[in-house]
Amino acid sequence: MSTRIDVGRARAETPGCATRAHLNNAGAALPPRPVTDAVARHLDLEARIGGYEAADAAREAVEGFYDAVAELIGAHRDEIACTENATRAWDMAFHSVPFSPGDRILTTTSEYASNAIAFLQAAQRYGVRVDVVPDDEHGQLSLDALAAELGRGGVRLVAVNHVPTHNGLVNPAAGIGRLCRQAGVLYLLDACQSVGQLAVDVEDIGCDMLSTTGRKFLRGPRGTGFLYVRRRVLEDLKPPFLDLHSARWTAPDRYEMRPDARRFETWERNFAGQIGLAAAVRYASALGADAVEERITGLAARLREELADRPGVSVLDRGERRCGIVTFTVDGHEPARIMHTLREQGVNVSSTQGSRHFEPHPGPAAVRASVHYYNTEDDLARLLHALSNLR
Amino acid sequence: MSTRIDVGRARAETPGCATRAHLNNAGAALPPRPVTDAVARHLDLEARIGGYEAADAAREAVEGFYDAVAELIGAHRDEIACTENATRAWDMAFHSVPFSPGDRILTTTSEYASNAIAFLQAAQRYGVRVDVVPDDEHGQLSLDALAAELGRGGVRLVAVNHVPTHNGLVNPAAGIGRLCRQAGVLYLLDACQSVGQLAVDVEDIGCDMLSTTGRKFLRGPRGTGFLYVRRRVLEDLKPPFLDLHSARWTAPDRYEMRPDARRFETWERNFAGQIGLAAAVRYASALGADAVEERITGLAARLREELADRPGVSVLDRGERRCGIVTFTVDGHEPARIMHTLREQGVNVSSTQGSRHFEPHPGPAAVRASVHYYNTEDDLARLLHALSNLR
Repeated sequence: MSTRIDVGRARAETPGCATRAHLNNAGAALPPRPVTDAVARHLDLEARIGGYEAADAAREAVEGFYDAVAELIGAHRDEIACTENATRAWDMAFHSVPFSPGDRILTTTSEYASNAIAFLQAAQRYGVRVDVVPDDEHGQLSLDALAAELGRGGVRLVAVNHVPTHNGLVNPAAGIGRLCRQAGVLYLLDACQSVGQLAVDVEDIGCDMLSTTGRKFLRGPRGTGFLYVRRRVLEDLKPPFLDLHSARWTAPDRYEMRPDARRFETWERNFAGQIGLAAAVRYASALGADAVEERITGLAARLREELADRPGVSVLDRGERRCGIVTFTVDGHEPARIMHTLREQGVNVSSTQGSRHFEPHPGPAAVRASVHYYNTEDDLARLLHALSNLR
Repeated sequence: MSTRIDVGRARAETPGCATRAHLNNAGAALPPRPVTDAVARHLDLEARIGGYEAADAAREAVEGFYDAVAELIGAHRDEIACTENATRAWDMAFHSVPFSPGDRILTTTSEYASNAIAFLQAAQRYGVRVDVVPDDEHGQLSLDALAAELGRGGVRLVAVNHVPTHNGLVNPAAGIGRLCRQAGVLYLLDACQSVGQLAVDVEDIGCDMLSTTGRKFLRGPRGTGFLYVRRRVLEDLKPPFLDLHSARWTAPDRYEMRPDARRFETWERNFAGQIGLAAAVRYASALGADAVEERITGLAARLREELADRPGVSVLDRGERRCGIVTFTVDGHEPARIMHTLREQGVNVSSTQGSRHFEPHPGPAAVRASVHYYNTEDDLARLLHALSNLR
């Protein structure tokens, strides 16, 4: 497979490639050396000179995080907040929307269970209604159905995933953005599974808020994430939590929020993680999002073809456009069991049981193999070989 | 000074002691090798075998966190949640209280600015009132005044710090606990500055919720913390955020929360940090909280005496009982400036500007020197010497 990525170099910079066929990149990808080195260096500095003293010394690296992330997704640095993970990024954004009783939230059939639970919390807490936009014939969110739902009025927020956690489909994020703009409705995109594998540009997509994690396709440390909030909507949102970093206490009965998206942050944080994620983001930008996407989608398409040729294997991925996540079942074998069997052979995949109809556990559980640009056809062959030997 | 702590060993296990007189332990303490090694080992494992795979392999260490913390503070393991930092631990606890309009919150004159801002948010959001309990003649929260305020009724929550961030005083946490029990009022203790330097036992104190951080006197990694929630009050609280770990999505319109305090956690987290904090907690428990407290308060008392003897130096600490935080001013020298000058000489302190009357920035800013058990009289001498040379 031709590629614009120097796969040999990428693998040489990824110690984990030496022993594992790591196809669990939608779980957590293997970090490259520039990331692990940046984290280790900062932790060492903290131990040698003190935590606060190290943060002061690394001020430039910490501030560089905002520039690196902004460049990656086509935003401004003051639209970026560093968060503890994607869940907290999404929570902070979602719960900052000033809902009123009767407001409607529109979402997808394939929404992440955590988001679904938050919608139900919001229904109880604010009296909002959650409406699920049906899929189109390809299995992704139907833009026609979304337009119709928006036309009915009363929509306060469209909150959808870009790529579900349990399927290879890609939702039409930019099309959703156009419809939200036309309707003047807030748009929160859960990009946890897309940033780092697909080219994601907030101007192209037109989302107002975007949350993602460091550990998945971006190859950053666990316990890191970020939130994008468009300048224009910042003043319409009320961060659910504030501290002395996100706001200033100005009088006994008054406080003022920061003027930028960092009002969604906490003062205290995992600085080594933030510096590591900045390194991961720069690593991704240097390779180029288009080249990364091309390599990943090519490998995944190849894997789907090979799997589909096997007797007893069913590939479950839907959607007109597909990504690096490949989901499948093998007749007579439980997905969780397959995961464990493969892991013993040095092949990392995961098992998944996500929603297809905005219902918990409706469909069959599946094996999820998720490729990254550093994977090779040999990694795919190892997976296929291990599947052949299942008993 | 006699001590039950093996200071030589503690210093040998703390690389940062070699070059710095680290007296910024109320900011972030220097971690010992067992902590940095535990963190580095897990990060390395993640890079070699994958993030999810490493978390599975380290399951015992991760679960051991809850036992270690429970033992340290005299709680049950199912009353402990692992959080991203003390701020998020406190936020999750505070915003889980089901406030009604008119409810009163009682707090201290010396409350942390972040907590004060959260109280003001709650006043706007839920229509609660914040009442500040005055100090007694020693400068700590007055138990008589608290009893009187509780007697007036309508109190939903007592939320106070154990040790303020900017003063050496220790609030009478156990006395507050007794009064809260008698009044049947929820009690949230911000123990960010006390756990790890003072013996803290939730049964002795009688608090319902307790939040703290890893990085300060516990000597854990940055970006870690924990929350204690007493079993008895768990069902009265509504976590402001939930995800697929803290709750289960059971039907399209239903979810169920976990039965334990981990309903305040997120699924995704900084596992290396959690494992490192567990190591720090075990390290603290092995030394013994009483021995640690004795050593720290002894060193701090010595430092206060030495400082008080110096012309132009004013020690600001109040309270009948004092801890390892020493705050002072030097005539003619700005605290922030002193901090930078001292840091260049290898002496780490911080500057602080906290509230004394539940007002932002009321009193003079101060220098904060905070000692740990690994500090020596030589460290104090280095500080005093550097102060003598200020110009």
